[in-house]
Amino acid sequence: MRGSGYVRAIALPPPALGNNTADAQRLEQALKKALNTGFVHIPRALIPDLPGRLREWGWRAKVVLFKDRRSFKVVDLLDPGDSGPVLGAAVDIGTTRMVISLMNLETGEKLGETGFDNPQAGIGPDVLTRIHHARTPAGREELKRLAVDALNQQLVRLCRENQMTPDRVFLVAGAGNTAMTHLFAGLPAFGIIQEPYIPCVNILDTMDAATLGLDIHPRGQVFLFPNIGSYFGGDLLAGILAADLDRKDQPCIMVDVGTNAEIVLGNKDWLMACAGAAGPALESGVSRMGMTAKPGVIDRVRVDPSTKDLILHTIGEEAPVGICGSGMIDLAAALFTSGRIDIRGKLVPEACGQRLTDEDDIPAFELVAGADSGTGRPIRLSQVDLNSLTSAKAAMYTILEVIVSQTAGLSFSDLERFYVAGTFGSFINPDSAITIGMLPDIPTDRFQVLGNTSLKGAELLLTDPEAFDRVMAVRDTITYIELNVNQGFMTLFSGAKFYPHTDTSRFPSVKV
Amino acid sequence: MRGSGYVRAIALPPPALGNNTADAQRLEQALKKALNTGFVHIPRALIPDLPGRLREWGWRAKVVLFKDRRSFKVVDLLDPGDSGPVLGAAVDIGTTRMVISLMNLETGEKLGETGFDNPQAGIGPDVLTRIHHARTPAGREELKRLAVDALNQQLVRLCRENQMTPDRVFLVAGAGNTAMTHLFAGLPAFGIIQEPYIPCVNILDTMDAATLGLDIHPRGQVFLFPNIGSYFGGDLLAGILAADLDRKDQPCIMVDVGTNAEIVLGNKDWLMACAGAAGPALESGVSRMGMTAKPGVIDRVRVDPSTKDLILHTIGEEAPVGICGSGMIDLAAALFTSGRIDIRGKLVPEACGQRLTDEDDIPAFELVAGADSGTGRPIRLSQVDLNSLTSAKAAMYTILEVIVSQTAGLSFSDLERFYVAGTFGSFINPDSAITIGMLPDIPTDRFQVLGNTSLKGAELLLTDPEAFDRVMAVRDTITYIELNVNQGFMTLFSGAKFYPHTDTSRFPSVKV
Repeated sequence: MRGSGYVRAIALPPPALGNNTADAQRLEQALKKALNTGFVHIPRALIPDLPGRLREWGWRAKVVLFKDRRSFKVVDLLDPGDSGPVLGAAVDIGTTRMVISLMNLETGEKLGETGFDNPQAGIGPDVLTRIHHARTPAGREELKRLAVDALNQQLVRLCRENQMTPDRVFLVAGAGNTAMTHLFAGLPAFGIIQEPYIPCVNILDTMDAATLGLDIHPRGQVFLFPNIGSYFGGDLLAGILAADLDRKDQPCIMVDVGTNAEIVLGNKDWLMACAGAAGPALESGVSRMGMTAKPGVIDRVRVDPSTKDLILHTIGEEAPVGICGSGMIDLAAALFTSGRIDIRGKLVPEACGQRLTDEDDIPAFELVAGADSGTGRPIRLSQVDLNSLTSAKAAMYTILEVIVSQTAGLSFSDLERFYVAGTFGSFINPDSAITIGMLPDIPTDRFQVLGNTSLKGAELLLTDPEAFDRVMAVRDTITYIELNVNQGFMTLFSGAKFYPHTDTSRFPSVKV
Repeated sequence: MRGSGYVRAIALPPPALGNNTADAQRLEQALKKALNTGFVHIPRALIPDLPGRLREWGWRAKVVLFKDRRSFKVVDLLDPGDSGPVLGAAVDIGTTRMVISLMNLETGEKLGETGFDNPQAGIGPDVLTRIHHARTPAGREELKRLAVDALNQQLVRLCRENQMTPDRVFLVAGAGNTAMTHLFAGLPAFGIIQEPYIPCVNILDTMDAATLGLDIHPRGQVFLFPNIGSYFGGDLLAGILAADLDRKDQPCIMVDVGTNAEIVLGNKDWLMACAGAAGPALESGVSRMGMTAKPGVIDRVRVDPSTKDLILHTIGEEAPVGICGSGMIDLAAALFTSGRIDIRGKLVPEACGQRLTDEDDIPAFELVAGADSGTGRPIRLSQVDLNSLTSAKAAMYTILEVIVSQTAGLSFSDLERFYVAGTFGSFINPDSAITIGMLPDIPTDRFQVLGNTSLKGAELLLTDPEAFDRVMAVRDTITYIELNVNQGFMTLFSGAKFYPHTDTSRFPSVKV
């Protein structure tokens, strides 16, 4: 048996009077041996074809497999000389955007990637509206169809771009948060948003693609990353896989900054996670203010060391139209290091000079004058925006402090790697984030941006059979920390609302 | 959790903030605990209904389960107060006749039974013709549909007789020989009849009833007893289950006399089986001559001790129309004990007197004169018929001798029980069979007629979850003995062609 992953070339011992087990069991035994596993499932639909195919192919075949919780499953048997592509599709099931990548399952190579808006947003841009819509079977079916139809269309396009067709896609792996996973699979989700926050399902076993209406190979299989709870979804498990957190010797941390801050800490021996609940400040902060990246959006800000002027960079180097989250963090760091905001995050009139203006009687810093902007309107940062950012960065630091120091008993310097996941996180400049006290003051080479970890984890799951078992093992062993916003938290939070922190000894590298 | 078998009343711990796993996993965990098992599969189709049902029913339910090789599977969740019947159907998939019994899965009670001709006989009365017909997918589908449609109709009728409907049938278990199992499941079977005799499949995992077109509960499940090889089918595994052979302390034997003689010998520690190959004499003997039981068929024959007259009994006590297999054995014993045939099985003219006639110049014994028969034609037993019977009984004894003495190294007296299975076997009078030397001379109270063991095994499988594991364990451990018709066999066979045997010391109880 050659090959690796889920595509294997196999040769069976031909039958004889002294070796006369059935065709299906002959295949089953050969695969059990080759995969070193106790059971291999052969689907009923494939069984009638076995006698003809195995004899025609001289007891050799290219076998496409997948896994479920119980065993390997055979998806199809191909002619051993079949030279067509054997494809898989990884899917990031995002609330706003969905992303697919097309994988060659034989080589592990990524052939292409495409992102598109999740059409469920037509029902409601936010998850709450969609969950309410999913209270009826018809609503659930509609939400599922919207997402699945779009996925089917995009998959056709992605395959066509690679001169391939979706009937050569045998496996799909998808990762999303708990609510999105439910809505993608057409499941009721109302339990997720009402106390005591009970999902319909945490582990949805590998299923026929046809069950979801996915137009791939007729016996194609779909695996959706399992959830751990209502606020800890498959996207985070995919992230752990992508970051290899469950295989690290030394403690590492992964922070996914999306609508919530989600944090996983640990190594090969232990993993803990916290998510969501403490994030209201963060939610109403960075992510609200940050625009989606598009041409003209300010994504980097720095201070000219000699003139103290702010130097802006926009996406596509076009006239500025707004600022994104990473630009905001850069801007706050620049304002702070140039003395334009003080350690409480308040605008300093003397330092701001003519840039200080006001919006609805609230002080604001004018970053771009109307005449210079791409929209004709000035781009301003009000004290209210700044306060939100201050709360957000303080919440992030406090959450990190609670989980790393208070819960795990580690210091930040013990963290061998600090992974930053999620679209927003991808663009954060760690130096700026440290400067404002959002991230801890550790050597910047320990920070590593992972990008779309949901997608990467799903890609890994399609190409490495061990990944399936890792996901299940992590799911069963990870400790979920409920982050209580209690008096202790609020005390830490208050200290973290300073720039970079009331306790400046925590940020020795930040010089103002 | 109350109940037994595959119907269980279960109460789940209600969710709480501190116990917030998903509905599906809550059910899974409760069932794992209650069933003391490592995994319980919940079908995808049931998952969307869980949140509503579990909450409406106050976290209680009546759960209908089944098994496959990997785990227990949930078939449906019923209202805990549901008082409707929970039914299963056991099926004997016979070449000529099919039999269904309707089982109450909660009580284990058998509610009714019905037999009907297998409509596949319309394609061909013999299995060979059907296997040839099954070479094309359309032919396979036709054969499957014929059997399944008839089963559906009979099941409706059987349910109606019990004021029930087939949508309350959740489980079906069927047992047949290897070829019949393939044809019932719509699978190619040509490998079974050509060297090296390879079935398409030996173990067909539990599947959706819909896959076969069975009109039962929409998520109903079907299990077909697995085969061990082309000539050792699920019917024999069902028989082992019915006879409890795999649980016996002392060696026991089960003999199924159908078209072939199939024999299983052993106890809880070991089992061996042989079937088929040595049976040509038997095939062309008893079973060819024996009529199917119907009114007027002679089923019992005895000798009046004083007059030596033969006293015939017919089914329904109607005018005689023929003789069935068990009647034939009785008749041969009566002829032998009354001196009308000698130890070589030849008609003795002096003893037969006026009953001796001839048919096509072959001596024959006239059992019923034409004037006394139900057909107007005489009922005769020719020397050719007798020779066939002699070969048949000798073959049976020789096979028993080979497996019990030569292979297992036991003597017949070591057999604690001698089970006789199969329709034909059900009516054999052990005394007569011993008298002619067909069965060994052991105390007649050790013989036990089991009747339709395929059906009984299937009934057991539906009502006792341990039965599934027993079937798989027996399948994996039983030794199949290829019976070679070599010189040694022929020598034994020659000795066994005498009445009762050349070695009369083997039959001390037979006094002539």
